[in-house]
Amino acid sequence: MKVGDRHYRTIWPTSDGRAIEIIDQRWLPHEFRVVPLSTVDEVATAIRDMWVRGAPLIGVTAAYGVAIAMLGDPSDAALDSTWDYLHETRPTAINLRWALDDMRNLLRPLPPAERADAAFARAAEIAEEDVELNRSIGRHGLTIIRQIAASKPEGEPVRILTHCNAGWLATVDYGTATAPIYLALEEGIPVHVYVDETRPRNQGAQLTAWEMVGQEVPHTLVVDNAGGHLMQHGLIDMVIVGTDRTTRNGDVCNKIGTYLKALAARDNGVPFYVALPSPTIDWTVGDGVAEIPIEERSSDEVSLVWGRTADGKVMQVRISPDATEAANPAFDVTPARLVTGLITERGIAEASETGLRGLFPR
Amino acid sequence: MKVGDRHYRTIWPTSDGRAIEIIDQRWLPHEFRVVPLSTVDEVATAIRDMWVRGAPLIGVTAAYGVAIAMLGDPSDAALDSTWDYLHETRPTAINLRWALDDMRNLLRPLPPAERADAAFARAAEIAEEDVELNRSIGRHGLTIIRQIAASKPEGEPVRILTHCNAGWLATVDYGTATAPIYLALEEGIPVHVYVDETRPRNQGAQLTAWEMVGQEVPHTLVVDNAGGHLMQHGLIDMVIVGTDRTTRNGDVCNKIGTYLKALAARDNGVPFYVALPSPTIDWTVGDGVAEIPIEERSSDEVSLVWGRTADGKVMQVRISPDATEAANPAFDVTPARLVTGLITERGIAEASETGLRGLFPR
Repeated sequence: MKVGDRHYRTIWPTSDGRAIEIIDQRWLPHEFRVVPLSTVDEVATAIRDMWVRGAPLIGVTAAYGVAIAMLGDPSDAALDSTWDYLHETRPTAINLRWALDDMRNLLRPLPPAERADAAFARAAEIAEEDVELNRSIGRHGLTIIRQIAASKPEGEPVRILTHCNAGWLATVDYGTATAPIYLALEEGIPVHVYVDETRPRNQGAQLTAWEMVGQEVPHTLVVDNAGGHLMQHGLIDMVIVGTDRTTRNGDVCNKIGTYLKALAARDNGVPFYVALPSPTIDWTVGDGVAEIPIEERSSDEVSLVWGRTADGKVMQVRISPDATEAANPAFDVTPARLVTGLITERGIAEASETGLRGLFPR
Repeated sequence: MKVGDRHYRTIWPTSDGRAIEIIDQRWLPHEFRVVPLSTVDEVATAIRDMWVRGAPLIGVTAAYGVAIAMLGDPSDAALDSTWDYLHETRPTAINLRWALDDMRNLLRPLPPAERADAAFARAAEIAEEDVELNRSIGRHGLTIIRQIAASKPEGEPVRILTHCNAGWLATVDYGTATAPIYLALEEGIPVHVYVDETRPRNQGAQLTAWEMVGQEVPHTLVVDNAGGHLMQHGLIDMVIVGTDRTTRNGDVCNKIGTYLKALAARDNGVPFYVALPSPTIDWTVGDGVAEIPIEERSSDEVSLVWGRTADGKVMQVRISPDATEAANPAFDVTPARLVTGLITERGIAEASETGLRGLFPR
């Protein structure tokens, strides 16, 4: 998508094809920094410390991580240890496991000498597939936005609430939840996006808002607490969020707080959609609340807030007493019963095993 | 309550009885600052800019503001203009109007020369009444905590979620939602308080957490997004919040985000209680969602976060792009149907006109 006048993706191979470059998202929206990653340690750090985040982008980054590992040591042992090493960086993200399995299954039968080249080629392919998935999600989601627009007086914007960042920064390009929005704008449908701040890491305030500014989407930032009030007063036409993992029953594991927005949407008759590329479906899991382990992150992510000071420094400030500990569950599970529909690359499914199997048969 | 080894209230008259001192809550938890207020302009600033906040404390502060105004000009015209001037500082707080009406009704019949003394005496009385109300709320709320404790294995804490600060800092002393907690601790009942951060102004992280540290209450800070997840996993036994205004039907207007917690509580069978002194009941309003005007505060409260830097400075950082505007509704309304009970100074009422009128007949 556009950054100033240039088109960027979130990740791309360096010109020699032996490393990658990424947008280091920790500095957004204050600074736009591109950094190279040329070792598997750097890749692991970038995933673990969230220089890159978002389930699809994590998957692609891990795939390139395997490729970079194969340059140094293409042995079976290195392949397995790289799988383990990268997998533990973000245990909740289903795409991470999916990408690592995909790479290992491809590389294992190959002679070690061919593995690095094959791995880089496959990682690039996964990146292209992600872009294509997102465009397809966008086309299907667009039909919903078009319908809502048609039901409103000419020129009135479709008001969409989104939580966290399931935008192009969470993917290789276009985004999942944002793809329908970007396509609606291309088509000239007026939209207005309400951006949830998304504490504790503020991906909405920092990343989604930055995307909206860059693509010139009319938008309003709100605290996570505000969504219920906005829906009670008829100010939201639909909710679209992404997902880190979707169970076969249609339960949605996404950024902490998603569940609260889904409850408010149901209480106010607002449609609640989840945009997802099919690699985020975990067919092995039925009941999301009972079965999905939730990543518990550092107390400091809650107690310390990143921002830019009046004199332009990007730094952290502590918002709570030193003696106060914080709990920091990073995700929650929205039960399928609260989800109006799952927007996938193959169409819109009811949030149920029947709905998902209708689009993705065994 | 305790601050270090000393007992403090949030507001008290100066030794000459012609001004007041308050805890300037903007600096908590990082600095404990006491400031004098000796003009009605200073009082208005302290209320508007939230040096003091919380419906009961706003009421008491405004009452003292009227007294201070009478020192300078005890005329009828000054009495009316002070009423108008102080009333517009925080339009949502019902206690503000209640206290201003109470003061004007008392002072109007008196000769101007007697008004200042009578006003200071009445303001002190309102402060004492607030303390007494909160102790009564505490005693009634304690019966609920006692019951939950009795249903758990010996020694397991009663886990209470609270939103915003309805603690002693929001009142003159004890607090509303916290009074039952402080009395439970005095009685030796183990409790664990989950403190909602409460964006955008972080009253939970800054004030409630500070109270918990000061009174040595076991507690955990969480982002506002986390409550639903905690309830889904059986980690919360009850919710207690305060209220800025309660309608005669039992709708509760409280800090933005309260409604989302009430939805999560209902979805998970967790009891949701609201603690309130009866002056927060607005008998003139029936339907809270339709009728209560919600204060819209500055965009900067969302975009700029106060905190303490690593080198000890208390300052603001910007968390969102400069080009992004924020909406900032300060309150929302939790419909009575989501409220398990209203804990008042006269007992626990069902959240309905019948329930409230049972305790507070015409």
